[in-house]
Amino acid sequence: MQNTIQIAIVGVTGYTGMELIRLLANHPVFELRVVTSRQAAGKRLQEIYPHLSGFKLGEMPIVQPDPDKIAEQCSLAFLAVPHGMAMAMAAVLYGKGVKVVDLSADFRIRSRETYQKWYALEHSYPDLLDEAVYGLVEIYQEKIKEAGLVANPGCYPSSIILGLYPALAFDLIDAESIIIDSKSGATGAGRGAKIDTLFSEVQDGFRAYALGGAHRHTPEVEQELSRFAGRQITVSFNPHLLPVNRGILSTMYAKLKPGVDLQQVRQAYTKIYLQHEWVRILDQGVLPQLKNVRGTMLCDLGLVIDERTDRLIMVSAIDNLCRGASGQALANANLMSGLDTSAGLNLAPLVP
Amino acid sequence: MQNTIQIAIVGVTGYTGMELIRLLANHPVFELRVVTSRQAAGKRLQEIYPHLSGFKLGEMPIVQPDPDKIAEQCSLAFLAVPHGMAMAMAAVLYGKGVKVVDLSADFRIRSRETYQKWYALEHSYPDLLDEAVYGLVEIYQEKIKEAGLVANPGCYPSSIILGLYPALAFDLIDAESIIIDSKSGATGAGRGAKIDTLFSEVQDGFRAYALGGAHRHTPEVEQELSRFAGRQITVSFNPHLLPVNRGILSTMYAKLKPGVDLQQVRQAYTKIYLQHEWVRILDQGVLPQLKNVRGTMLCDLGLVIDERTDRLIMVSAIDNLCRGASGQALANANLMSGLDTSAGLNLAPLVP
Amino acid sequence: MQNTIQIAIVGVTGYTGMELIRLLANHPVFELRVVTSRQAAGKRLQEIYPHLSGFKLGEMPIVQPDPDKIAEQCSLAFLAVPHGMAMAMAAVLYGKGVKVVDLSADFRIRSRETYQKWYALEHSYPDLLDEAVYGLVEIYQEKIKEAGLVANPGCYPSSIILGLYPALAFDLIDAESIIIDSKSGATGAGRGAKIDTLFSEVQDGFRAYALGGAHRHTPEVEQELSRFAGRQITVSFNPHLLPVNRGILSTMYAKLKPGVDLQQVRQAYTKIYLQHEWVRILDQGVLPQLKNVRGTMLCDLGLVIDERTDRLIMVSAIDNLCRGASGQALANANLMSGLDTSAGLNLAPLVP
Amino acid sequence: MQNTIQIAIVGVTGYTGMELIRLLANHPVFELRVVTSRQAAGKRLQEIYPHLSGFKLGEMPIVQPDPDKIAEQCSLAFLAVPHGMAMAMAAVLYGKGVKVVDLSADFRIRSRETYQKWYALEHSYPDLLDEAVYGLVEIYQEKIKEAGLVANPGCYPSSIILGLYPALAFDLIDAESIIIDSKSGATGAGRGAKIDTLFSEVQDGFRAYALGGAHRHTPEVEQELSRFAGRQITVSFNPHLLPVNRGILSTMYAKLKPGVDLQQVRQAYTKIYLQHEWVRILDQGVLPQLKNVRGTMLCDLGLVIDERTDRLIMVSAIDNLCRGASGQALANANLMSGLDTSAGLNLAPLVP
Repeated sequence: MQNTIQIAIVGVTGYTGMELIRLLANHPVFELRVVTSRQAAGKRLQEIYPHLSGFKLGEMPIVQPDPDKIAEQCSLAFLAVPHGMAMAMAAVLYGKGVKVVDLSADFRIRSRETYQKWYALEHSYPDLLDEAVYGLVEIYQEKIKEAGLVANPGCYPSSIILGLYPALAFDLIDAESIIIDSKSGATGAGRGAKIDTLFSEVQDGFRAYALGGAHRHTPEVEQELSRFAGRQITVSFNPHLLPVNRGILSTMYAKLKPGVDLQQVRQAYTKIYLQHEWVRILDQGVLPQLKNVRGTMLCDLGLVIDERTDRLIMVSAIDNLCRGASGQALANANLMSGLDTSAGLNLAPLVP
Repeated sequence: MQNTIQIAIVGVTGYTGMELIRLLANHPVFELRVVTSRQAAGKRLQEIYPHLSGFKLGEMPIVQPDPDKIAEQCSLAFLAVPHGMAMAMAAVLYGKGVKVVDLSADFRIRSRETYQKWYALEHSYPDLLDEAVYGLVEIYQEKIKEAGLVANPGCYPSSIILGLYPALAFDLIDAESIIIDSKSGATGAGRGAKIDTLFSEVQDGFRAYALGGAHRHTPEVEQELSRFAGRQITVSFNPHLLPVNRGILSTMYAKLKPGVDLQQVRQAYTKIYLQHEWVRILDQGVLPQLKNVRGTMLCDLGLVIDERTDRLIMVSAIDNLCRGASGQALANANLMSGLDTSAGLNLAPLVP
Repeated sequence: MQNTIQIAIVGVTGYTGMELIRLLANHPVFELRVVTSRQAAGKRLQEIYPHLSGFKLGEMPIVQPDPDKIAEQCSLAFLAVPHGMAMAMAAVLYGKGVKVVDLSADFRIRSRETYQKWYALEHSYPDLLDEAVYGLVEIYQEKIKEAGLVANPGCYPSSIILGLYPALAFDLIDAESIIIDSKSGATGAGRGAKIDTLFSEVQDGFRAYALGGAHRHTPEVEQELSRFAGRQITVSFNPHLLPVNRGILSTMYAKLKPGVDLQQVRQAYTKIYLQHEWVRILDQGVLPQLKNVRGTMLCDLGLVIDERTDRLIMVSAIDNLCRGASGQALANANLMSGLDTSAGLNLAPLVP
Repeated sequence: MQNTIQIAIVGVTGYTGMELIRLLANHPVFELRVVTSRQAAGKRLQEIYPHLSGFKLGEMPIVQPDPDKIAEQCSLAFLAVPHGMAMAMAAVLYGKGVKVVDLSADFRIRSRETYQKWYALEHSYPDLLDEAVYGLVEIYQEKIKEAGLVANPGCYPSSIILGLYPALAFDLIDAESIIIDSKSGATGAGRGAKIDTLFSEVQDGFRAYALGGAHRHTPEVEQELSRFAGRQITVSFNPHLLPVNRGILSTMYAKLKPGVDLQQVRQAYTKIYLQHEWVRILDQGVLPQLKNVRGTMLCDLGLVIDERTDRLIMVSAIDNLCRGASGQALANANLMSGLDTSAGLNLAPLVP
C-alpha cells in the first residue's frame, strides 16, 4: 500500500479551495495536513463549510499561512490565493523543496512583460517562470512529472486549449480565423462579495463581458495555441456569464484548411486524445452540455462542420471548478508525486 | 377617444399565446373577442391560466377555431399555431378581409422552394407569400402599415437582424465573414411536453444545438441580411439553450472593412435607430444583458471592436417572447390598425 | 386631467428603490423629481441601472439626500433606506409637510419598547409612532387616506397578514395554534454585497433561517394579528430562502374552531376581500404559485382544510418587491394623494 | 478481495435509474449486469445518457425486462419502475431467489387496504407485504440484512421519518400536533414529459400542492411514525415544489412535552444517530440547507425550540434522488449482500 503524502492548501475560503477539499476527501494517497486562510484562521474547516461536518477533514484547524510550517509538514502545496499574492509564497515553498501547484495566474504566462501588461503587476520572481510547467495534463504530462512548480491553467484556457489543440497540431484550420465564444458559470467569478454576482443579479439572466480580447485569459490562450501552431497567433476571445454554478462551454469557430473534411477532423482529435480518457469526443450529431461533465474531470468535445461557410465548429464543455481548476490541480499533484493522473479523480457526473 | 378594435387569438395554449394575452390585458384599443384552442376549447382562459383569474380577460371562453366566426366578430387575428397549420387559417381569414399577424414561420420565407427545403412542407398558398410583409417594425414600418398579412419574425432572427442591419446597410463589415453565436431561453423551445425541456434537464445546464446552419431560422436570417447587403450572403448561425425563461442574446462577429473605426460604427447604428426608441445602443463599454430587456420590446445593442483581430462584435439582447414574438406581433397589429407602434407596449423591464 | 404630483425617492440603490422606479415609469400622476443616494450621488440613474437607459427617468441625476431640497420640490417622499436611518429623515420631512411613505421598519411597530427589543435601537421619534399608519391597503385604507406618514409593511408580514386576517376576524381558527412557514425569494435579503446571497451560494439550494421567532418580522405580524384577534397572540414564524428572485409564499396552519367548514371559510375570505381586487381567492383545489403574481400587486390565497387533523391551511403568494414593498408603497402614496389605490398598478403577471 | 456481485436495474430511463447508475459506476463490489427498459431496449446506455459515454457502464446494452434472464445472471435486482408495475416483477424475481430492492411504493405500505385506498390499485401480492422490509437503513438495519425483498422508502418519508424518529421514540413531543411542511426539488416529480414540470413552468417559481393529507406519502409517513409512537397517529403533511433539481427540506413542527428542553432534545437525537454517520445533527444555531447534502447519503438535522410557543422545530435536508431513493436502495443492497452499508456511498457533497 502506498504511503500517504502530506499536503497543504494555502487559501481555503474561495471556490477553488472548497473544491480541492471536496476532491481530497476521497483521495487514496494525499492527506491534507495544513489548510490556511488569513481571514478564517482559528476556525475549523467545518465552521466555515458546514457541508464538511462529520467528515474527518472537517475537523481540521485553519491556520495562518506560514511557509516554514508548511515546509516542515508537507511535501506538496496547492496555492489557491489571488494572483499577485501567490508568487512569493510559491517562491519560498519551492525554495524549501516543497512541490507547488499554483492555481493563480502568476506562473502561467512565460513572458514577464506579457504578465506585467495584462495583470498590471511586476513579476517578482521572473527566474521561476522558466521553472514553472503549464499544467494541462493531456499535453504536458511528461514535463509535469518532473516539475517542482506547476502553473495550473485558467478555467477558460482549459476549455479552449483542449478544444483547439488537435485542429492546430494537425494544421486543419486557419489559425488566424479563430473566434472563441465562451460561456462560464458564476463560480468562475470567485467567492468575493460583489453586487454583480448576487443571486438576484445573475439568476434568469445572461450577459457578455470583457469582449474582444479584454479578458486576462487571452494571452494564456494565445501562448499555448501559438506553440501548437508553430508561430504567434492572435485569437478573438469573448466570455459570457451563465446563470449556472459550474461549467464552461466554449464554442470555437475557424476556417477549415482547403480539402479538410469531418472524417479527417475526427481522426485527428481521436488520435490526440486516444490515451486521455477524460476527453470525450462525442459521436457525430451529439453536442456537449454542461450537465454531462458536472463535478468531474471530463472534457466533452463536439465537432461540426458548417458546410455552408467552410468552418469547423469545435465545442468543449468542462466543469470550471473541477477540470478547470482544482481537479486539474490535483491531477498535476498526482503526476508530480508519481501517482496515476486519475488518482481520486474517477468521478461520475452528477446528472441531473 | 379611439373606438375599440375587436381581435382574435388563434391558438392560445402556447407561450406566444400566453404572452399575447399578457400584453393585451393593458392595451388601450384592442379588445380580445375570440380565443381559440383545439385542445382547451370549452374552458375559460383562467382555467388554463390561473394567473389571469380576476382579470376581465380571464373570463373569456376558449372556443374551437372557426374562421367564419372570427371574421364576423374580429377585424384582426393573431395566429399562434405551429408552422404548417397557420397557412390555411391565414389564407381563409385574409380572404375574408381579416387582417392577419402570423406568428408561425409560414409566411416568413419569400421563396416557396426555400420554405419547402427547410420546413419539409409544400407551401399551399404560394401566392400569399407575395402579399405577406415581414414584420420587423424598425425596418418595414411603412409596408406593415399597408399590409393585410404580416409574417411575424422568428425570435432568433429578430435578435440577429436588428444587430446586423446597420453594419450591412452601411457596408462596415465583410458580409461573408459573419458568425452568429446565439443563446436562447427555454421558452423558445415551446410549451410542448418534452423530456429535453423538463426543469431538471435544463436547470443549471447549458448546451449547443443545431450548430452550423442546421437551424430553421438560418434561411430567414439570410433572406433579410442579403437584402441589406444587396447580394446573397451566407452566415454561420449557431444556437444554444440557456437555463433562463426569457431572452435571446446573440453575439455576432464579422471582419471590419478596412479603415472602419468604432466611431463610424456607432454613428451608423445611431443613425439607423435614432427614431426607434426600442433599440438602445448602449454606451461604449456597456454590454447587453438579458435582464435589462425582460418583459419588454427593447433590443439592447453593444458594439465592440476587437482591435487585435480587426473584427466588429455586435451583441444584441431581446426578450424572445415579447420582442421576439408576441410583443412584436402586437406592434405589427398596431401599425396595421393605424395606431402608434408602441400602443400598449411601453413596458419597463422587470429587474431584478 | 390630473396635475402631476412631484415625488422623491430617498435611497435608490437597493431593490426596493429599483422597484419603485420601475413602477413610477408608468404612473399617470406621480412625477419623480428627486432621487437620492449617498454612494451614487453625481451619477444619472441609467448609469447605475442600464435597464433604464432610454427611459425619461434614466436621465435623472442622483443627488445627496437633502430634506430641505426635497421639501421644496416634492409633496411626497418614499424612504427606501435601512431601518434606523429612515426615522430621522421621516421626522424632518414630515415636519416640513412632506407626506412620507417609509419602506423601512422604523414606524411599523407601535410600541417603542418592542421596536427597541427587536431592532436593538432606541427609537428617536416615539411621538411619531402614534402618527404613523400601518400601510396595508386592504385593511387600513381609510386611515391611509388621512395619513401624513405611512409605515409600509414588511414583505413577510404582507403575505402573512393578508392570509390570516379573515380567519381571525371571523374567529374561524384557534389563534394560539398558528404556525407560519414562509419561503422568500432572494431579493428579500437586499442588495448588499454578501457571500451568503451570491448566486453560487443560493442557486439550486434552499435553506431555513431565523426559525422559531428569531426573525424581526415576528413582532410586526403579531401586532397586527393581535388586533384582529382582539387579544395578544403569539405565532410561530419560520422563514426560508428560495432560489428565486421575487416572491413570498407563506403556508399557514391553524386549528379550526369546532364546526367550521370550508364553505364558511371561503365565505369569510370572500366577504373580506370582495372589494379588493388584488386579493384573489383561488378556486377550491387550486393553490397559489409565485409565478402567477410576479411583478404585480396580486395576493393569491389558497384555502384547504386538512380534514384528518382539523386544521385550516392558508397559503398566500405575493411578489415581495412589488406587493410586499414598493408596489404597496405606491398604493399607499396613491391613497395619501387622493388617487385610486390602483393608479399605475394594474399590472399583469409576467408568466412565464 | 471481495468477489463481484451481479446485479440488475429494471427500468433505467427515469431519474432513480439514472442515479443508480451514477452510484454503481464507482461501487467496489456490485457489477451491473442487466439494465432494462421497455422503451429504450436495443440501445446502449450511453445513447440515452451521453454523460456515461466513456464509462464502462455506458457500453451496456439495454434489454427488455425478462425475469428469467435476470434470475440467471444476477443475484440482486433494483426495481425502478412505477408503482403498480413493480409488484409482479418483484414477486417473480423474489420467487426465483433474486434479492429485490423495490424503489416503487408497492411494498412500503404494510396494509393492503391502505395501499388500495391511497394508490387506487388492488395489491396482487398481499402475502409478500409481510416479507418486505421497509428499507430505512438507520432504523431497520438488522432486518434489512436478513431481507430478500426491501421496500425502499419514499423520498418525502425518508426526510420526515429521520427527522421525527428520535422525538417520538423518546416521547419528547405531542404526537397529535405534528405538522410537516416539505419542499422538494423537481426530480421528485419524475422524468415523464409533462407541461407542469417544464423548465419554464418551474424555474423562478414555487408552489404548494397536495396539501392537507392529499399526497400518497402520507400513509407511509404515518405507518412508520405510529410505530415509534406506539399508537396510531395522524400527521398533517404538506408538500411544495422547489425550483431546484435535487433535495427535500422538511420543516416539522410539534408541541413539546412539558419540561422538555433543547439539551434533552439534542441528547435524544445524538443517542439515536450516534452510530449512523450519514445523519448529521447540526450545531446549535446552524440550520440545514440542501446544497450541503447534494449528491450524497447525508441527512442534515437542525433542531430549534420556539420558546415563545413551546414547539420543537425539526428541519431535515436530504438529496431526494440519492438519500431519498437510489442511494438508499444501494445501501439496502449493501446490507442484503453482507457488505458495509456505506460501500460505494462515501460521497462528499457537491458544493457549490
